[in-house]
Amino acid sequence: KATAWLARATSLAILILVGNWVHMTLGGVGLHPKPLPDGSGNDTGKLFNWHPILMTLGFAVFMVEALLTYQAPILASLPRETRKRIHWGCHSAAILCLLLGLVAVLQSHRLKLPVPMPDWYSPHSYLGITALVLLSLQFGLGAYAYLWPRLSLPQRLALGPLHRYVGAATWLAGLGAIATGLQEKITFMQMSKVVTGAALYGPAVRVPAAVLVLLVVLAALVLYL
Amino acid sequence: KATAWLARATSLAILILVGNWVHMTLGGVGLHPKPLPDGSGNDTGKLFNWHPILMTLGFAVFMVEALLTYQAPILASLPRETRKRIHWGCHSAAILCLLLGLVAVLQSHRLKLPVPMPDWYSPHSYLGITALVLLSLQFGLGAYAYLWPRLSLPQRLALGPLHRYVGAATWLAGLGAIATGLQEKITFMQMSKVVTGAALYGPAVRVPAAVLVLLVVLAALVLYL
Ligand code: HEM
Ligand code: HEM
Ligand code: HEM
Ligand code: HEM
Ligand SMILES: O=C1O[C@H]([C@@H](O)CO)C(O)=C1O
Repeated sequence: KATAWLARATSLAILILVGNWVHMTLGGVGLHPKPLPDGSGNDTGKLFNWHPILMTLGFAVFMVEALLTYQAPILASLPRETRKRIHWGCHSAAILCLLLGLVAVLQSHRLKLPVPMPDWYSPHSYLGITALVLLSLQFGLGAYAYLWPRLSLPQRLALGPLHRYVGAATWLAGLGAIATGLQEKITFMQMSKVVTGAALYGPAVRVPAAVLVLLVVLAALVLYL
Repeated sequence: KATAWLARATSLAILILVGNWVHMTLGGVGLHPKPLPDGSGNDTGKLFNWHPILMTLGFAVFMVEALLTYQAPILASLPRETRKRIHWGCHSAAILCLLLGLVAVLQSHRLKLPVPMPDWYSPHSYLGITALVLLSLQFGLGAYAYLWPRLSLPQRLALGPLHRYVGAATWLAGLGAIATGLQEKITFMQMSKVVTGAALYGPAVRVPAAVLVLLVVLAALVLYL
């Protein structure tokens, strides 16, 4: 279907834009805290920067492929069993990215010196953790019902609408977390005068702005398939 | 349908929570700029505070009723012509709120003294204006096609899928604007130390956090109807 390919293109555009923004505006990724020149502490910014990349990969790339695969897999001729394997395989890849992305932000808070950053101080973090909890439940129940120990056919048929409904809500929560996360981070950078003056009207703001619009396009494309 | 009533309840809960948060955390609404005690300028915060209220009313209350009315109107027996009138009537009410809410934020920027606030410095504002532009186009085209000068039946039937698709995207953009707007505002309050210390773990943060989760529930309920 044409809308599925548009969805994949949108998904790729989002990944490229977030990657570019993390590189140009946030200064790129890195695993190790960097000591401050005056020895007073460190900067865990580059460790944090894995967070937006990995979360975007999880919810806006791998999970999109998982959601498209039943109705519009990359190869039209794939048998249903293969689609099912792609569905849970892509969800597994998404979950791996998301867990690493969660570790990135938690560790960037804990390893910060001289004062660690606190956790859970934002609406974004509550929405994000809601998405991750829903995702775990959904994955566990999906695997239990459809893979092992596989419920009876009538039971599986009865579960279908709930699985699709909770699945869609989980995914929308993830997209909402991307949107609010980008907004939170750019507001941090503005309030601490890292992004200021003419930069308020350059790519530092406009790239995440474009991502928010594309997230809406992506949601509409995937849910209206 | 039960999901439509759940959607209405969610919509109402969102309005109450945003109203409560604007009252308790942002200090309530007001029309006039307040001179600062030292005479150095003024505070247009209470004028701004109309913005979240009116935007929520528009996208999360009136527009929800507009979207539900074809498939699940409040009175099940309504004829199609009446549903159509409710559809565009509720959209009109939504647009009125949204225009007033836009004026509130623009004026709160312009009337600020000694230095007016700039506009369009956030991803939120780009997403918000995208939603409003889409909404105007959608309303204009909808009125032209379905009301006056009313296209022919085959033309109207052909337009249906596009009208529904763009309508859903517009509405999701509006919900996304609510989510990112709440995140932006609470981050402002945190960075300027108005919300700090124990307040980071109180209603100032948790009420908007609950709203973000409810927005996801609302979107899933309305779009999966
Ligand atoms: C699917 C997407 C995402 C999910 C599920 C998610 C989840 C989370 C969670 C659970 C936290 C809380 C960690 C803590 O409190 O220690 C967090 C923090 C954070 N996230 Fe995300 N996130 C996502 C995307 C993003 C993106 C794209 C950005 C953009 C830069 C971002 C920016 C932040 C920031 C600045 C924090 C630290 C401050 C805070 O706790 O709010 N997030 N995220
Ligand atoms: C990890 C989170 C998961 C999410 C968010 C999710 C989401 C979804 C969604 C939205 C659909 C509807 C797709 C469509 O109609 O095009 C679906 C279908 C399906 N999913 Fe999942 N899923 C998840 C995990 C799983 C797992 C682990 C399995 C195990 C194999 C599974 C098995 C299925 C099956 C069999 C269907 C088709 C159901 C039917 O048509 O009745 N899902 N899933
Ligand atoms: C449907 C919902 C919404 C839409 C369409 C919307 C739209 C807009 C627009 C177009 C602007 C730009 C005005 C300018 O630059 O002068 C703006 C500014 C703003 N909005 Fe919203 N808004 C919505 C909801 C909210 C909510 C619920 C909040 C929560 C407090 C909020 C917070 C803000 C803030 C802080 C600004 C000023 C800073 C900025 O320009 O980003 N908005 N909004
Ligand atoms: C203002 C923005 C508007 C939005 C966001 C919007 C959105 C929608 C949506 C999502 C639907 C599908 C509802 C469903 O299937 O349950 C719909 C249906 C419809 N709308 Fe609108 N609408 C708007 C304005 C209008 C206007 C001004 C009219 C003029 C009367 C109109 C006439 C219709 C008609 C006739 C249908 C039924 C179409 C069909 O089933 O083929 N809409 N609208
Ligand atoms: O195990 C499965 O269950 C569903 C379906 O039969 C009930 O929803 C499906 O497609 C499978 O492959």
